[in-house]
Amino acid sequence: MELKEFVRDIPDFPKKGVIYKDITPLLLAPKAVNQALEQFLENIGQQPIDKVVGIESRGFFFATLLAQRLDAGFIPVRKPGKLPASTHAQEYELEYGSDTLEIHKDAIQPGDKVLLHDDVLATGGTAAATCKLIEKCGGEIVLCNFLIELDFLRGQEQLKACTVHSLMHY
Amino acid sequence: MELKEFVRDIPDFPKKGVIYKDITPLLLAPKAVNQALEQFLENIGQQPIDKVVGIESRGFFFATLLAQRLDAGFIPVRKPGKLPASTHAQEYELEYGSDTLEIHKDAIQPGDKVLLHDDVLATGGTAAATCKLIEKCGGEIVLCNFLIELDFLRGQEQLKACTVHSLMHY
Repeated sequence: MELKEFVRDIPDFPKKGVIYKDITPLLLAPKAVNQALEQFLENIGQQPIDKVVGIESRGFFFATLLAQRLDAGFIPVRKPGKLPASTHAQEYELEYGSDTLEIHKDAIQPGDKVLLHDDVLATGGTAAATCKLIEKCGGEIVLCNFLIELDFLRGQEQLKACTVHSLMHY
Repeated sequence: MELKEFVRDIPDFPKKGVIYKDITPLLLAPKAVNQALEQFLENIGQQPIDKVVGIESRGFFFATLLAQRLDAGFIPVRKPGKLPASTHAQEYELEYGSDTLEIHKDAIQPGDKVLLHDDVLATGGTAAATCKLIEKCGGEIVLCNFLIELDFLRGQEQLKACTVHSLMHY
């Protein structure tokens, strides 16, 4: 089964000239979700993972599934003001302006082996900011994985210190 | 194991006088996640479920897990402007003002048996709006389930036509 059959192109979303990769058809198909999950797990292999970090909010879908299968804790990285306890914050650059992500300070213990997951690796800004948050907590990033990687946006250049694995490339 | 041990109270969040129920400690504990998941599944029993709808964004955590275990499709209900394809929208009242939720029109087929999930049932506004969205698509709501129900806010009064199941009551 080809996972790309479950991703649809939405032209001009969220703005003119962008072709958005919509993963909701994949989420609707249990066999595709299972295949994606198994491919992620096969790539992770026997590497120990203590925590899985998912980036708000489409990163939550597979991050929760991965955490459950890996018997690891799940940690949401969220937009400012959403996490109720004490947080670390990390700003990152957007095409116009900047944005910030937060993590609960007590979510990761120093030395924890961490898997970072998001649905799409585009320019790498949010993933790189999340790596910094994990490092601020003392976590060790084992792997960053993504359903989709937009190769032409060269997101891996922002994640040079990490191992990156993506199921689908465009 | 008592699931309530994995929920922490955060006073005055998101505003003065509110005691926020933080489920992130539960998400960090795989054994607590597994127990919650099994309790949900035990309650669902043999009822057929075609689709699991999770409400943005904390509803996504267990909705994805439930969908995967039930071999059902997962559907995110989101804030306006987040879903890229054609949507139904439903407004609902807040304490001050109103808000809107959206669902992809093609996510549910008429007659689909649907499980609605969110992390917390409070006043019931978002859950009731989501029920309307599911009905607009022609879905049949089998059950609404929640990790936490704040009984004093009487959210079930907004969901009278539905079966409601919550793992923890406050």
